[in-house]
Amino acid sequence: MTQYQQATTGTITAAMQRVAEREGLAPDTIRDEIAAGRLVIPANRIHLEGLGEDRLDPCGIGRAVRTKINANIGASPVSSCRDHELIKLEHAVRYGADAVMDLSTGGDLDETRQFLLARSTVPIGTVPIYSMIVDRPIEDLTCERILATCEAQARQGVDFFTIHAGLLREHIPLATRRRLGIVSRGGSLLAKWMTHHGRQNPMYEMFDEISAIMRQYDVCYSLGDGLRPGCLADASDEAQFAELDVLGELVARAREAGVQVMVEGPGHVPYNEIEMNMTRQQEVCHGAPFYVLGPIVTDAFPGYDHITAAIGATAAAVYGASFLCYVTPAEHLALPTPDDVRAGCVAHKIAAHAADIARGLRGARDRDDAISEARSAFDWTRQLELAFDGEAARAIRSRDAGKQDTDDFCSMCGRDWCAMRISRDVAERNAEASS
Amino acid sequence: MTQYQQATTGTITAAMQRVAEREGLAPDTIRDEIAAGRLVIPANRIHLEGLGEDRLDPCGIGRAVRTKINANIGASPVSSCRDHELIKLEHAVRYGADAVMDLSTGGDLDETRQFLLARSTVPIGTVPIYSMIVDRPIEDLTCERILATCEAQARQGVDFFTIHAGLLREHIPLATRRRLGIVSRGGSLLAKWMTHHGRQNPMYEMFDEISAIMRQYDVCYSLGDGLRPGCLADASDEAQFAELDVLGELVARAREAGVQVMVEGPGHVPYNEIEMNMTRQQEVCHGAPFYVLGPIVTDAFPGYDHITAAIGATAAAVYGASFLCYVTPAEHLALPTPDDVRAGCVAHKIAAHAADIARGLRGARDRDDAISEARSAFDWTRQLELAFDGEAARAIRSRDAGKQDTDDFCSMCGRDWCAMRISRDVAERNAEASS
Repeated sequence: MTQYQQATTGTITAAMQRVAEREGLAPDTIRDEIAAGRLVIPANRIHLEGLGEDRLDPCGIGRAVRTKINANIGASPVSSCRDHELIKLEHAVRYGADAVMDLSTGGDLDETRQFLLARSTVPIGTVPIYSMIVDRPIEDLTCERILATCEAQARQGVDFFTIHAGLLREHIPLATRRRLGIVSRGGSLLAKWMTHHGRQNPMYEMFDEISAIMRQYDVCYSLGDGLRPGCLADASDEAQFAELDVLGELVARAREAGVQVMVEGPGHVPYNEIEMNMTRQQEVCHGAPFYVLGPIVTDAFPGYDHITAAIGATAAAVYGASFLCYVTPAEHLALPTPDDVRAGCVAHKIAAHAADIARGLRGARDRDDAISEARSAFDWTRQLELAFDGEAARAIRSRDAGKQDTDDFCSMCGRDWCAMRISRDVAERNAEASS
Repeated sequence: MTQYQQATTGTITAAMQRVAEREGLAPDTIRDEIAAGRLVIPANRIHLEGLGEDRLDPCGIGRAVRTKINANIGASPVSSCRDHELIKLEHAVRYGADAVMDLSTGGDLDETRQFLLARSTVPIGTVPIYSMIVDRPIEDLTCERILATCEAQARQGVDFFTIHAGLLREHIPLATRRRLGIVSRGGSLLAKWMTHHGRQNPMYEMFDEISAIMRQYDVCYSLGDGLRPGCLADASDEAQFAELDVLGELVARAREAGVQVMVEGPGHVPYNEIEMNMTRQQEVCHGAPFYVLGPIVTDAFPGYDHITAAIGATAAAVYGASFLCYVTPAEHLALPTPDDVRAGCVAHKIAAHAADIARGLRGARDRDDAISEARSAFDWTRQLELAFDGEAARAIRSRDAGKQDTDDFCSMCGRDWCAMRISRDVAERNAEASS
């Protein structure tokens, strides 16, 4: 039985217990949210039982809990090395990723996936279509191979699958007239298949068979947005919303099949359209957790898309998203390095955290208050301990370390010009005067 | 006559003409906005006439025009070198700063200021109180020295002054009970002076005399927010809003004196309080341009405050701010280096640009659309030319340059897996089929 099926029959599983503990919420709340379809725990029973060195630590995704972030890693045909991907996985988890997707399209895909699953305490997601066509043209994809690949990856322990079942044949003309067409790899591949065969999307046609496999292992759906906009000019267009309507229908079908489901979203979206996009998805998709890529709020800053995305992601998480897929500085340019993974994770952790504070989530501001206390006390050791990436902060502070002889200020203002020191002095004098 | 005085008498000055040209707006619009107090052109007539190698290129700040960004530079007692500050000025302008503040508190302040003014095409702002007390304790500050310093800096050609005239004696008890007290240098110094002398803020008491000096040279007010919150816990509190009410009164007094005026704002603010803060300032301050520092939306990410600030700055610029003071990765930790200046500028340029798109400013999305066209055409040369920081983008793309033999893809997906290539193929086949 899947987490969803158990929740709907009133059961609180060990995974629900663990999520409740991690979030500081009552187990009933977690169960009820799962039963309502508003929260998922992507936890393949194989990964949950443990596959190797590490086992999965269950993680909840939904509006009732903290906003989560995902890091995409994976080899490409241009650059592939299993150990390199492990370094990226470790960096991702160290810098705050709550889940990781292995999007490998190069090297030995099965081996890399198995290798990462055995070493990951966070849920691992994949896009199974990549494995389906790695050694053959997309035109040769058959229904048998789709099911066999889903089955094989589910058996390996993958926790969530991106399945691009919402992009229908009739949507293709809407997409080809766009400025950037289809920018989703899975979406573009399926559009090519449909165009070649003159048939409907096989992921849509076989949705119930795929669901049956996923239910068996409790793999969670991440319904892919094959028609996400790839630039501001394509945002919130007919193609995007036509697919969204199908995704809403598929959410209902996944739930009927007892399978957990979340929904992927844009993409590139102007800042002023983010709230509308979040509201519309929540309505159309019956409250299923929304998993967004960015959204990137300007197209003009390649090299800095971790920032353009973190801005959009903060607004998205405030207005309805539950899961933020990171974007790294390498977006649009190259395969990310471990340093890019770090930059992408931290930027999106900022977005998730800032949004949780804005949403008024209980305890969300505790760390901020503690670090402000440490600042107020000029306790640099504690301040850097509490910093999300203390190593980065320490490196900046230590640049001028030789130039100062005490610890109660920083080189920005120097000792005599430190506003907080002066302010403390003022407070003391005022306290004296009034006593 | 100041730009404000001329606008109110119906005159369109050369500076207004130039701003209109830079913004693609009618000169009448610029004049009318200035006359209404909703737009300023910080342009000291000395700097406008030219001081040395370069002369000021007038820049408008207000809601009717593009959102502007400011970079703070300046030596500190811990690190001071005139040439080093020039490098920062050049970096700032290169990476998008529309104005620069010289906040030096170390080295020869007068000489550094003169040196930068003679080489700056962008408006230069200062906080004159720093020069007033650089060689003596704040307690020794006299009214004569305040006026003499303002006069001397105005005569040098400084375009805007931060004057902390809104922090009154009666606000000090509101500030000392905060978690972080007063985090503005100018604000804390004046609070110390008031506490020592048991007198009202001299900047407030002498506001009209200061205005008279500023009017003579057309120096623009940037009314300082001495009580800006220094952490989320202090945001939107009684201290902050008590000062804001005084700033509103001072906006009216500055205008009566014929002086251009903008107003400084927070600071550290939770994301959900930004819109309210912007609306309130615009109402209380009679539409005067709002110049915000960030706001930073979480306290827990030292080392990444260019990102925490860019998130807040985007929302601020959407909801009411016109001028964004950058925050660099060194904030809270050290004096920024030229690299930090670059990172801070680019992050805030993203915020300003994303907000201008969201506000629907005419032409704001042109660059985004052009870069998306170049992406669609796989024209990497053009794409990197159009990128705001093409050098950074090129460095990332070139990492894998030796690994690919053609130019129509990137190493993220490799050639065969490029969604845009596949999508183009689909579009071509569909076009054939329908012809």
